[in-house]
Amino acid sequence: MLGSTGSIGRQALEVIGWFPDRFRLVGLATNQNIDLLEEQVAAHGVPFAAVADVDAAREFGQRSRVPRPEAVPGPADRARRGGAVCLPGPAGLKELASLPEADLVLVAVSGIAGLVPTLEAIGSGKTVALANKETLVAGGSLVMSAAMSRGVQVIPVDSEHSAIHQCLMRGERREVARLILTGSGGPFRSLTEEQLRDVTPEQALRHPTWQMGAKITIDSATLMNKGLEVIEARWLFGVDYPDIEVLIHPQSIVHGLVVYQDGAVIAQLGRPDMRVPIQYALMFPERKANRLEPLDLAGAAQLTFAKPDLKTFRCLALAIEAGTAGGTMPAVLNAANEVVVMAFLQGKTPFLSIAGVVEGVMSRHTIIPSPGLEEILAADGWARQAAEHLLSSR
Amino acid sequence: MLGSTGSIGRQALEVIGWFPDRFRLVGLATNQNIDLLEEQVAAHGVPFAAVADVDAAREFGQRSRVPRPEAVPGPADRARRGGAVCLPGPAGLKELASLPEADLVLVAVSGIAGLVPTLEAIGSGKTVALANKETLVAGGSLVMSAAMSRGVQVIPVDSEHSAIHQCLMRGERREVARLILTGSGGPFRSLTEEQLRDVTPEQALRHPTWQMGAKITIDSATLMNKGLEVIEARWLFGVDYPDIEVLIHPQSIVHGLVVYQDGAVIAQLGRPDMRVPIQYALMFPERKANRLEPLDLAGAAQLTFAKPDLKTFRCLALAIEAGTAGGTMPAVLNAANEVVVMAFLQGKTPFLSIAGVVEGVMSRHTIIPSPGLEEILAADGWARQAAEHLLSSR
Repeated sequence: MLGSTGSIGRQALEVIGWFPDRFRLVGLATNQNIDLLEEQVAAHGVPFAAVADVDAAREFGQRSRVPRPEAVPGPADRARRGGAVCLPGPAGLKELASLPEADLVLVAVSGIAGLVPTLEAIGSGKTVALANKETLVAGGSLVMSAAMSRGVQVIPVDSEHSAIHQCLMRGERREVARLILTGSGGPFRSLTEEQLRDVTPEQALRHPTWQMGAKITIDSATLMNKGLEVIEARWLFGVDYPDIEVLIHPQSIVHGLVVYQDGAVIAQLGRPDMRVPIQYALMFPERKANRLEPLDLAGAAQLTFAKPDLKTFRCLALAIEAGTAGGTMPAVLNAANEVVVMAFLQGKTPFLSIAGVVEGVMSRHTIIPSPGLEEILAADGWARQAAEHLLSSR
Repeated sequence: MLGSTGSIGRQALEVIGWFPDRFRLVGLATNQNIDLLEEQVAAHGVPFAAVADVDAAREFGQRSRVPRPEAVPGPADRARRGGAVCLPGPAGLKELASLPEADLVLVAVSGIAGLVPTLEAIGSGKTVALANKETLVAGGSLVMSAAMSRGVQVIPVDSEHSAIHQCLMRGERREVARLILTGSGGPFRSLTEEQLRDVTPEQALRHPTWQMGAKITIDSATLMNKGLEVIEARWLFGVDYPDIEVLIHPQSIVHGLVVYQDGAVIAQLGRPDMRVPIQYALMFPERKANRLEPLDLAGAAQLTFAKPDLKTFRCLALAIEAGTAGGTMPAVLNAANEVVVMAFLQGKTPFLSIAGVVEGVMSRHTIIPSPGLEEILAADGWARQAAEHLLSSR
């Protein structure tokens, strides 16, 4: 499990705890939250732990008191002793993603950091449960062709893509006319551009239906999140951009829909609770009863659907534009967005500048078609610098 | 196609006309609408036609000028000559349902008349596309065990059951927690018992979302239709009554839902147009593009769901009660309902008497458990007499 200390990782550990006979955790990874990692390692008796941040890794290695690489005992022995072998740095993440003991790798790290370990997991033949958007946004072609050639399944964890994955199970791929991704529209869906001028990070972080991390919550407020999901859906399901529709559905009950050629529409519904798609991805194709409260449709308010306002929420339009342009452009969109969202969260730039900076960086980028991993990572790095530059010159 | 001149039959002919290379019609049957049957036979070049009503059959036989049983030419030859071999009476329906040329039999006759030909079709190894509720309401156990032992598929045409059939595809049956059937609630869903006292057949026939025949439209107004569908669902999908829920959904966009054990809910949506489930049943498991306008969710009003009012709309409660009691009781419920609905349509009895008469007949019936075909038909006949008696004594 890459990213065990984040929002998805913590919920995945809860789900895994419901089915002690079904799962055996062989590795956890964090960026730098080693306090929580230590607790998780002890609670679940996990033999391997990776820490991406090198300083944090050094401290964790000392705490776990298991020197590396000398005399690594077997996992069972490790678990009994309550510590974990520490795999430090980005190389540690890669190593964790390809541990021979693992059948499935949950990629729940945030940001572009998910790309390399995902490719590593696929290269090692692991099933990938993918909760990291950037992996497919930046490296969709690379990742999906690697998965195809290794015969590896990539199962989405995002609620929208999980919904569509489930709805596609009800028909043949060639019978699909269109995909529909729903989005709550975020906290600002009914605001005008004028009203958006002065919104604060605090306001943007108050998401109406989902509890998520800060970055993705801001992306929900700008609709960039939905744009990244459109790009993800293109790669996960092999459907072209004109056939992927976004609908604003403020109640977050219907998570995704597939429109079949014959006019039938299959939808997946549920309470807005990530533990459902997490369990689905970890257990696919099995479904087992769990402890979650069932959806109460009669108790729910009405369900509504509306087309998104692409003029006010330009990030969604930019993402579709970047996806359609292809090559390195989606990686650039994503990297520029990460930088400016961080600046917004730190109070350094206004909400409306997010789309402006992303668009500015995109307009300066020369696309490399069919990029390899190095070219994607280079475009990512270039876009970050370009975004910083635009931010400081504003 | 049994029941080609009714609402479902006419729409099925339209669907078949969309795919001339996919279907070859080998037989049509009507009760007594021989004028339309004659048109249909000519338009589609159909070699066999059955007419259940004996007098109508005699006239049709003369018109089609093909004596029976002497010198029946092959189907292709028949079609060229523009006439059809007439198969008269109830025996004709049975014969049509077992024609060796047929792979699939669409049962779209109304009433208990569907039961015997459905059993005949199953006995002859045909796939059955079932648009006749009474077949499963009265003979569910008999029909499904015959289908099971012949290895024959029974594919529902009812929009609600088609929805659930689609939602169940490739999910495992043991992973299903609950089925949800939706219903518009009919034209009277917001009326009180007091207000229902004086409603007329004309008012009851004004269904808000679906265009259907008169009997089923009245059943929609009483919610008996939903009750019959609950019994059907029990037999089609093998789910027990406590796990089949009914929700009132006035917009008729979400047709049915399956709640899986893990909390995920899969739903089928579409415009209220029977041609979608008809095509699905006729082509299963294939889906092909057709000429229907796609569902426009963003243009749709809100979708709402509410628990039904079982006190005001007692027919739904009575149906679940009859289904739970089992044996011959559902056949009795159905037969009594047919009689009293007909009397209501003829202005002979008030709307609110429908539940009263059905309940009265049920209370007088001694259940025969695990009935055979004769016992089911006898219970049906007894219930009709009992209902007539109750009506005349009111």
